[in-house]
Amino acid sequence: MSVTFAQGFRAAGVEAGISAKEGKKDLALVVNDGPIKAGAGVFTVNRFCAAPVQWTRNAIKQGRVDAVILNSGGANSCTGTKGYAQSQAEAELVANLVHTEPQYVAVCSTGMIGELLPLANVLDGAREAYAQLDSTEQAGVDASHAIMTTDTVPKTCTRQGTGYRIGGMVKGAGMIAPQLATMLCVITTDAQVSAGQCQAALAYAVDQSFNRIDVDGCMSTNDTVLLLASGASECEPDPDEFNQLVAEICADLAAQIVGDGEGSSHTIRITVNRASSEEAALACGRAVAASNLLKCAISGNDPNWGRIVSSLGTVPEDVAPYDPQKVSVAVNGVCICDGAKPAHDRSEVNMENREVQIDITLNSGEALATVWTDDLTHEYVHINADYES
Amino acid sequence: MSVTFAQGFRAAGVEAGISAKEGKKDLALVVNDGPIKAGAGVFTVNRFCAAPVQWTRNAIKQGRVDAVILNSGGANSCTGTKGYAQSQAEAELVANLVHTEPQYVAVCSTGMIGELLPLANVLDGAREAYAQLDSTEQAGVDASHAIMTTDTVPKTCTRQGTGYRIGGMVKGAGMIAPQLATMLCVITTDAQVSAGQCQAALAYAVDQSFNRIDVDGCMSTNDTVLLLASGASECEPDPDEFNQLVAEICADLAAQIVGDGEGSSHTIRITVNRASSEEAALACGRAVAASNLLKCAISGNDPNWGRIVSSLGTVPEDVAPYDPQKVSVAVNGVCICDGAKPAHDRSEVNMENREVQIDITLNSGEALATVWTDDLTHEYVHINADYES
Repeated sequence: MSVTFAQGFRAAGVEAGISAKEGKKDLALVVNDGPIKAGAGVFTVNRFCAAPVQWTRNAIKQGRVDAVILNSGGANSCTGTKGYAQSQAEAELVANLVHTEPQYVAVCSTGMIGELLPLANVLDGAREAYAQLDSTEQAGVDASHAIMTTDTVPKTCTRQGTGYRIGGMVKGAGMIAPQLATMLCVITTDAQVSAGQCQAALAYAVDQSFNRIDVDGCMSTNDTVLLLASGASECEPDPDEFNQLVAEICADLAAQIVGDGEGSSHTIRITVNRASSEEAALACGRAVAASNLLKCAISGNDPNWGRIVSSLGTVPEDVAPYDPQKVSVAVNGVCICDGAKPAHDRSEVNMENREVQIDITLNSGEALATVWTDDLTHEYVHINADYES
Repeated sequence: MSVTFAQGFRAAGVEAGISAKEGKKDLALVVNDGPIKAGAGVFTVNRFCAAPVQWTRNAIKQGRVDAVILNSGGANSCTGTKGYAQSQAEAELVANLVHTEPQYVAVCSTGMIGELLPLANVLDGAREAYAQLDSTEQAGVDASHAIMTTDTVPKTCTRQGTGYRIGGMVKGAGMIAPQLATMLCVITTDAQVSAGQCQAALAYAVDQSFNRIDVDGCMSTNDTVLLLASGASECEPDPDEFNQLVAEICADLAAQIVGDGEGSSHTIRITVNRASSEEAALACGRAVAASNLLKCAISGNDPNWGRIVSSLGTVPEDVAPYDPQKVSVAVNGVCICDGAKPAHDRSEVNMENREVQIDITLNSGEALATVWTDDLTHEYVHINADYES
């Protein structure tokens, strides 16, 4: 259902000839028909952010988003003033089509860095997408297909609130790191909420979800997460419920990204328990999630806890105070390291399922945090050694 | 020639039955016959440091090292008080053999984390190595073979000073990160220098070499670099020359580690030029060196500069102030990104040679730094997915 689950939105996904992949939909359009057109966004913090990010980050300051144009097949990143002009041209065309101002149009791109878009194709595609705009389930599905790159499946999610709906789509499978990911995400709701409510809900949700996943430790130049509200349900939501549902949507979509991590054969869920603070738990979880050696071991079905504690040991003491001699590690429920010493033999751990649950207990407090990553496989190297080359 | 190049040292490498690999030498002994027996060391900063590191870091405080016992086939890391007792037992036996005190014996181990050593084999091996101690070239070669793990070649280096000699051996191929690496290194000299001189020379040399290489971003629990001086040449070296030669030895051995990085097909040399400070240049170089996406692209012979600038863009502005719009990137001498925009087409870059030189110019100052890493290949995943499992 994706972005058309909520009332007041139309979408389309078309083949515009931007992507090198034959027959692939590569341009999506999402239009907010209102009555209200509140919008909020969270973006990559990469200093080399792409032209569409520069454009949209500025546009979103108005708190209003009437439409979003997204393309795969090219990131329009590190393309200088010409690239920025392309993003602007996209916004101007879409504004013209939907009878609004360019500053109310968000632009998202994903693909190869350092190449301009085939602008004529993009603009022709935008016109075609506009002609095909629909509020059907299929229209939402088409849009979610059009933003895929190395994704093997489209990623969408919906939640039914009390009197209103929320739905979303995301793309992303590689170049995924904490502090966002190479991902484009559009979430729509027909709840009657302000841009400020959207921004607050989104900031919290992203912090708890997309910022806690790590496929390969690489931060993108194009990450964009947008939340658009139409108010079409005429329902003013309970703020707590609304925030919770936006958080659930983001968590669900983030899990889908990790579940589709490039070449991955295992999803690794790392929970750091009994830490002195959530920040300490997060820092430890991220250090472990970033270990290539652990990720390789897991792809070989080996719960090698030496790879876990050696990563944990790189977190500075002022960031995460704990006594190494009190640290325990369990994998899939089997305690294989107790007090920094071997416990159960790691051959007792069942590694058959895709999901691997690593529980690290620091015994230095009461806080906890969970991060997600993938294993590192031959297929990941293959995908990224041969990417566009 | 390794550790027997300098006068006053004997060495041996024997097959003690510690390693699972049939017929592999796995225990080395290096003995300093004096007349002086100065020693200095640099160790991993991992909070889960191994028992031999705990032992040796404490022993080295005396400034005297009479002998070093090293083994592959087991790291004796995260093995609790039993593991520490094993390191102590090794030192006691060697002290007994060479007629000194245990606190003057350094202990180094490398291999799997979380398993005790087969102590009887280690002690029998130490006795055999003692019986075979020799100052010949072959004895040094044998020792360098005995410390290899996933290394495909032994790694040694020598330098002739004015009236004295320096030689060394190192092991390491994976789990190599800035701030040391999974590496054991023993350097010997017959120069007449104090423990303080050794420590100063070694600290500088390690900072400029082993701390600037990164095979896989993973920090070990066992890293140890030792410098032993016998004074047998009776030559008091010029301090600058001595420091310089120790630095050259470390740089040479560090380059050998990267040249033998697990599964690697390219060595990547990253120089960050015109930075505001050396620290800024180093931070940028390390961020780029840590990118799995870049490392995969290079293994596919693709100088994908988008992977370079997107990594560069993750370095916080307060760490490395620069204007992204003024950044340029050259690979193997071809400028492919100028002012954050495409320059020469990357197809013009010749990627045939093993070494790939990446030059990043920040245009924000006059400082520079170089770091080294390897590409990420199918073979790396294979080695680490199937490691000891």
